[in-house]
Amino acid sequence: MFLTRSEYDRGVNTFSPEGRLYQVEYAIEAIKLGSTAVGLKTDEGVVLAVEKRITSGLLEPSSVDKIMEIDAHVGCAVSGLTADAPSLVEHGRVEAQNHKFSYNEAMSVKSIVQALCDLALSFGEAADEEPSMSRPFGVALLIAGHDETGPCLYHTDPSGSSWACDAKAIGSGSEGANSSLQEHYHKDMTLKEAETLALSTLKHVMEEKVTSLNVYIARVAPKYHLYTPSEVESVIRRL
Amino acid sequence: MFLTRSEYDRGVNTFSPEGRLYQVEYAIEAIKLGSTAVGLKTDEGVVLAVEKRITSGLLEPSSVDKIMEIDAHVGCAVSGLTADAPSLVEHGRVEAQNHKFSYNEAMSVKSIVQALCDLALSFGEAADEEPSMSRPFGVALLIAGHDETGPCLYHTDPSGSSWACDAKAIGSGSEGANSSLQEHYHKDMTLKEAETLALSTLKHVMEEKVTSLNVYIARVAPKYHLYTPSEVESVIRRL
Amino acid sequence: MFLTRSEYDRGVNTFSPEGRLYQVEYAIEAIKLGSTAVGLKTDEGVVLAVEKRITSGLLEPSSVDKIMEIDAHVGCAVSGLTADAPSLVEHGRVEAQNHKFSYNEAMSVKSIVQALCDLALSFGEAADEEPSMSRPFGVALLIAGHDETGPCLYHTDPSGSSWACDAKAIGSGSEGANSSLQEHYHKDMTLKEAETLALSTLKHVMEEKVTSLNVYIARVAPKYHLYTPSEVESVIRRL
Amino acid sequence: MFLTRSEYDRGVNTFSPEGRLYQVEYAIEAIKLGSTAVGLKTDEGVVLAVEKRITSGLLEPSSVDKIMEIDAHVGCAVSGLTADAPSLVEHGRVEAQNHKFSYNEAMSVKSIVQALCDLALSFGEAADEEPSMSRPFGVALLIAGHDETGPCLYHTDPSGSSWACDAKAIGSGSEGANSSLQEHYHKDMTLKEAETLALSTLKHVMEEKVTSLNVYIARVAPKYHLYTPSEVESVIRRL
Amino acid sequence: MFLTRSEYDRGVNTFSPEGRLYQVEYAIEAIKLGSTAVGLKTDEGVVLAVEKRITSGLLEPSSVDKIMEIDAHVGCAVSGLTADAPSLVEHGRVEAQNHKFSYNEAMSVKSIVQALCDLALSFGEAADEEPSMSRPFGVALLIAGHDETGPCLYHTDPSGSSWACDAKAIGSGSEGANSSLQEHYHKDMTLKEAETLALSTLKHVMEEKVTSLNVYIARVAPKYHLYTPSEVESVIRRL
Amino acid sequence: MFLTRSEYDRGVNTFSPEGRLYQVEYAIEAIKLGSTAVGLKTDEGVVLAVEKRITSGLLEPSSVDKIMEIDAHVGCAVSGLTADAPSLVEHGRVEAQNHKFSYNEAMSVKSIVQALCDLALSFGEAADEEPSMSRPFGVALLIAGHDETGPCLYHTDPSGSSWACDAKAIGSGSEGANSSLQEHYHKDMTLKEAETLALSTLKHVMEEKVTSLNVYIARVAPKYHLYTPSEVESVIRRL
Amino acid sequence: MFLTRSEYDRGVNTFSPEGRLYQVEYAIEAIKLGSTAVGLKTDEGVVLAVEKRITSGLLEPSSVDKIMEIDAHVGCAVSGLTADAPSLVEHGRVEAQNHKFSYNEAMSVKSIVQALCDLALSFGEAADEEPSMSRPFGVALLIAGHDETGPCLYHTDPSGSSWACDAKAIGSGSEGANSSLQEHYHKDMTLKEAETLALSTLKHVMEEKVTSLNVYIARVAPKYHLYTPSEVESVIRRL
Repeated sequence: MFLTRSEYDRGVNTFSPEGRLYQVEYAIEAIKLGSTAVGLKTDEGVVLAVEKRITSGLLEPSSVDKIMEIDAHVGCAVSGLTADAPSLVEHGRVEAQNHKFSYNEAMSVKSIVQALCDLALSFGEAADEEPSMSRPFGVALLIAGHDETGPCLYHTDPSGSSWACDAKAIGSGSEGANSSLQEHYHKDMTLKEAETLALSTLKHVMEEKVTSLNVYIARVAPKYHLYTPSEVESVIRRL
Repeated sequence: MFLTRSEYDRGVNTFSPEGRLYQVEYAIEAIKLGSTAVGLKTDEGVVLAVEKRITSGLLEPSSVDKIMEIDAHVGCAVSGLTADAPSLVEHGRVEAQNHKFSYNEAMSVKSIVQALCDLALSFGEAADEEPSMSRPFGVALLIAGHDETGPCLYHTDPSGSSWACDAKAIGSGSEGANSSLQEHYHKDMTLKEAETLALSTLKHVMEEKVTSLNVYIARVAPKYHLYTPSEVESVIRRL
Repeated sequence: MFLTRSEYDRGVNTFSPEGRLYQVEYAIEAIKLGSTAVGLKTDEGVVLAVEKRITSGLLEPSSVDKIMEIDAHVGCAVSGLTADAPSLVEHGRVEAQNHKFSYNEAMSVKSIVQALCDLALSFGEAADEEPSMSRPFGVALLIAGHDETGPCLYHTDPSGSSWACDAKAIGSGSEGANSSLQEHYHKDMTLKEAETLALSTLKHVMEEKVTSLNVYIARVAPKYHLYTPSEVESVIRRL
Repeated sequence: MFLTRSEYDRGVNTFSPEGRLYQVEYAIEAIKLGSTAVGLKTDEGVVLAVEKRITSGLLEPSSVDKIMEIDAHVGCAVSGLTADAPSLVEHGRVEAQNHKFSYNEAMSVKSIVQALCDLALSFGEAADEEPSMSRPFGVALLIAGHDETGPCLYHTDPSGSSWACDAKAIGSGSEGANSSLQEHYHKDMTLKEAETLALSTLKHVMEEKVTSLNVYIARVAPKYHLYTPSEVESVIRRL
Repeated sequence: MFLTRSEYDRGVNTFSPEGRLYQVEYAIEAIKLGSTAVGLKTDEGVVLAVEKRITSGLLEPSSVDKIMEIDAHVGCAVSGLTADAPSLVEHGRVEAQNHKFSYNEAMSVKSIVQALCDLALSFGEAADEEPSMSRPFGVALLIAGHDETGPCLYHTDPSGSSWACDAKAIGSGSEGANSSLQEHYHKDMTLKEAETLALSTLKHVMEEKVTSLNVYIARVAPKYHLYTPSEVESVIRRL
Repeated sequence: MFLTRSEYDRGVNTFSPEGRLYQVEYAIEAIKLGSTAVGLKTDEGVVLAVEKRITSGLLEPSSVDKIMEIDAHVGCAVSGLTADAPSLVEHGRVEAQNHKFSYNEAMSVKSIVQALCDLALSFGEAADEEPSMSRPFGVALLIAGHDETGPCLYHTDPSGSSWACDAKAIGSGSEGANSSLQEHYHKDMTLKEAETLALSTLKHVMEEKVTSLNVYIARVAPKYHLYTPSEVESVIRRL
Repeated sequence: MFLTRSEYDRGVNTFSPEGRLYQVEYAIEAIKLGSTAVGLKTDEGVVLAVEKRITSGLLEPSSVDKIMEIDAHVGCAVSGLTADAPSLVEHGRVEAQNHKFSYNEAMSVKSIVQALCDLALSFGEAADEEPSMSRPFGVALLIAGHDETGPCLYHTDPSGSSWACDAKAIGSGSEGANSSLQEHYHKDMTLKEAETLALSTLKHVMEEKVTSLNVYIARVAPKYHLYTPSEVESVIRRL
């Protein structure tokens, strides 16, 4: 008596008889086509690492922003339709700056994450004041931050949900990467150990050899810092 | 001569020949996929308890907001598409603050509940001033409060309906939980007994062992208070 | 050469070849799924009585608003999708207050009824200033009032039509209830007799025993008054 | 090569290959489901008479407005979806009052009729300033008036067209009523004779006996006057 | 490989593969269902004549406006969905008055015609300031005028096109009427001869006898004048 | 696996799998149904010539605007749905006047052409400030101008593209006309020779004999001038 | 159980079950129909070269803008639906001017590229303030610039993504051109060598002989300069 799922999966905001929103689930599929990103939280800070996919020798390796700073104490790694990320990140930056301006204090990481989720949830709505997408955002984020509550790592997806994590991988290699994290991660790692684990996790799911040209690493400890190629090299040497 | 139901179930505001709104009913189905939440009212106050679903050892247990404060005298537990809850809760907070500012008194729990229902009902409308969803909200709430009329517990669903209850369970385990409540709840319970019943009810419908890590408990008696892990532990020990 | 009815019944404002608006007719069907409500007019005032459907012993009986005050001299009973009623009732209250403020006199019951019908008719329109539904309201109302023209009872339905009545039943048991009223109602009843007839009518169509917990009674004579449980009890005793 | 008509008949503003607007034609069908109304023009004034359909002994006969005053010198009888009539009539009243206020003279009947037709024609348009329907109005009107040009009678339909008439019947019994009028009407009737002809015409097409309870009569001669039950009785006695 | 025409003919602004706009062409078909109108230009002025269709002896012959004044020096005859004409004509009147007010001179006939065509072309657009139809206007006009360039006659159709003509017939009898005009019209006719030719042309395509009751005649020579019944009679006598 | 083209050709802004916009291509087809227009550039100025299609002896030959002045130094010839041209031309005139008013110099021809293309491209957009079509404009233009860079000739089509040309023909006879131009045009023609070639080109593709009544000629050398019938005659005599 | 791709490929913002946006992918196909463009970065500056497609000897070669200046230090080459390019380029120019005006410094090339990508991404949104397309832009750009970070070359596509490149070809001949670049490009080329490689690359994928009439060349070194025909000739001679 019910229709097959294919009858409910094109309206961006149509519930299926089982209460599912298929367009959101399909957007989540877009993440599985993206490059792998890994995040790890330690007491000393949070590490993010992302695979760069280099499709041609003539593409400049540093040009695709897959790791971005949101505020001095918050950074994020992106996977999925990377063209969708700048609007999210820009929204987070503006919210963070406004908060600092109004209250003279850094915005808490949790509030920034919620601001991004609110925007992600608002697709398909006639928003007069704020920019909104007419489809779900096709990106997942790993958000690393450090505020009064200490270091923290969040994961958001196209449904506008967020989760705090100790360690998390997203993107095409996330399945293998997550079980690797499950196995090797422990809460009292040092930042240095986390860097090594992040990179060795990426290494397992990447098809090419890891070099300073095809991975990004960043940390928030307690400030955001994107590793220079030589810093990346030194992590690679530790593997 | 009539079409099958499947011809009327995709328009968010289309009546079927029997006078049903299927998209709202499908949104209610989304609740049945959510984690179980339980609420109990006693003369001393109201208790809310929610199951945390931990899908990975690396997920931080406290990160998903399933119990939230609306005002000092009102809290709520959430089940369903949890990403939809913050807009509802935020709306309730703003309404409650506005009321306090304008009239210098706490807003009655019933008025807060009605404000949430009005928002829940307004999906699919071109709202110029207020944010509105283009689909039904996929969440049900248990709202615990305490005002001049004493303690109270409300249940709301995606149709914008609300009911005052003595005890109520929602979410995937609601069927078993409600019959358990039916059997064991009585009006002259103490708050302490209610805590125990809430937890033992959750325990029956959860697949894992109950620990201070995978349940939340909160009370409004007469102020909202979210239990600390050690407070949860002490309730678990009483089981 | 014509299509079957099912080709015209999903657009909220589409005429069928015979000149019918099916979505409005389907909304009227929603009333037939609602709880039964009864209204009777006497020279002393008007009586409204509604069945409460208690689906669980833990639901608080007084929590679902099926009888509501619109102004001191006007009240209404609701049947159908009860979540749709508050917007209608609130609209009536605001109109009545505005009238009193502007003209320093109570708004006539007929004008209040027309205001509700105007709102009910405006679904599917792009209303910039007033809230409007994108589908027909799924509720019928029995509106009891008392103004310069004496007591009066109106019935409205989702089509935005209204009728003045002497006695009327709506909701799932309306068929039986209306023939019962047809048989027993007479114009020179006392208010007391009307109370008894209202309750005995409900009793015939309800599956459970009538108690002070599962019916509401209200009168407008000439002011709106919702009966307390003990007042309901005393009517039950007279049966 | 052409499609059957059923492919063009659901868009409110879609022309069929023969240049027809089916949704307007279907709205005109709605009139044929309505109660019969009759209008006659004499040199002394205009008479309107409408059948009241009483579906239940408990419905108050005077409660459904099928004859309404637009201005002191203009009244109208309604047939079809009567819930659609108040917006039209209210629009006419406002236009008439505005005219009187601006120019200190009564608005001509023809201008009032055109104002109603303009509103009727504007369905399906995004009207920012004035209320507009998203479907054709499902009512026909007989508009009786008296201005500097003497008595006049107009007929309007859902297409926004209007015609001046000497005598006209609309509604479910219009076919029989119009041939009766064709046969018996003559231009030099007295108002009294017109009253009798209006009522005898209704009598032929009504299934019940004509009483002062199931017909309305009004005249504009030169002012609008709705007959009291006893005035109706005296006309009935003359039959 | 192409679809049949029926796949492109319902969107009001959809091109078919051959570059045709079918909804406009269908609106032009609506003209062919309308009553016949004829216009002739002479050096002394322009004559318009229209058939009145009298469907009932009780309809007042002068009540349907098929010939209307736009400005003192411009008039028009209408064929098709006559209810669509008033918005066009009213638009022309306002434009003409505005021009006179701003520049203190009569608006040229050509500019008035272009103003009507601009409005006719704007259907289906979201017009914030001006009224616009959501479908093509279903009327054709013959516009007679007299300005500094002398007498002129224009023909406009639902596509928003206009043509200057010496003589033209539109409506259901246009085919026969146009070949009659082709044959008998010559440029140096007197106004009197044009009146006679206009009427004899109508006579050939009308099913009834021509009387002063079932045709309208108007001239612009150089001012707009609608003929009285006795003036029409005297033209008929000349036939 | 792909659908046939007919699945992608009705949405005005839908790409087909090969990256084509069919509605724009269909609008270009509309040009092929239009009358032929020819433009030629010489060092002395630019010549435009257009065929007038006279469908009836009673149509006034000069009434359809197929050659129009945009500014004193710019004119254009039109082919396709001529009713669409005035909005484009009017837009160009306003832009040109605004430029002259703001900068006290004539607007460059290239800028005027770009302004027309911008408008042509904006169909299907919700334009709040400027008028926009909800479908592609169904006209092509040949734009002749003369500015600081000397004489110039542009061709624009419904896609919003423009090309500078030495000589170009558009419309139903464009295929034959363009090969004729290819063969006979050379860059150092005099204006007089260009007039002759333009007319002889039209002559080859027209079904009727060329007369001063069925062609328009205009030049921009360096000012726009539309030829009088006697000027056209003198060109014809030179053939 | 899934539908074929053809069920998801017409909504501009509909995800397919695999998380793909087909309308964006189809727009990218439009680039493959466009003329070939090539860009090369050297330490001395960046070279852009584009094929002109000359469909007729009468088309003026310089008239189609395929290479455009955005700011004094930024230029771009265009491939695809060239009519879509001016809005993008104009947007970039305005952003660059605004930046210079506000901050008194040249806008960084990366920021200009991001501004273009933001606009490209915003199709299908109801943008109140800025112009937005209702479909993806059908153009790809090669953006050459020179700022504080030295020379740079970016590639953008209809998805709103951008990549920094050393060398890149787009358009119909991009496949062959890119492998040619892959083979012959090296980072320490002189600008002169880059000019030669750009042209020889174009030469291989063009069907006609390369002349100064059918290719454009521009450089940003460090200012934008479009080569004159004689400058192009001298590069050709070096081949």
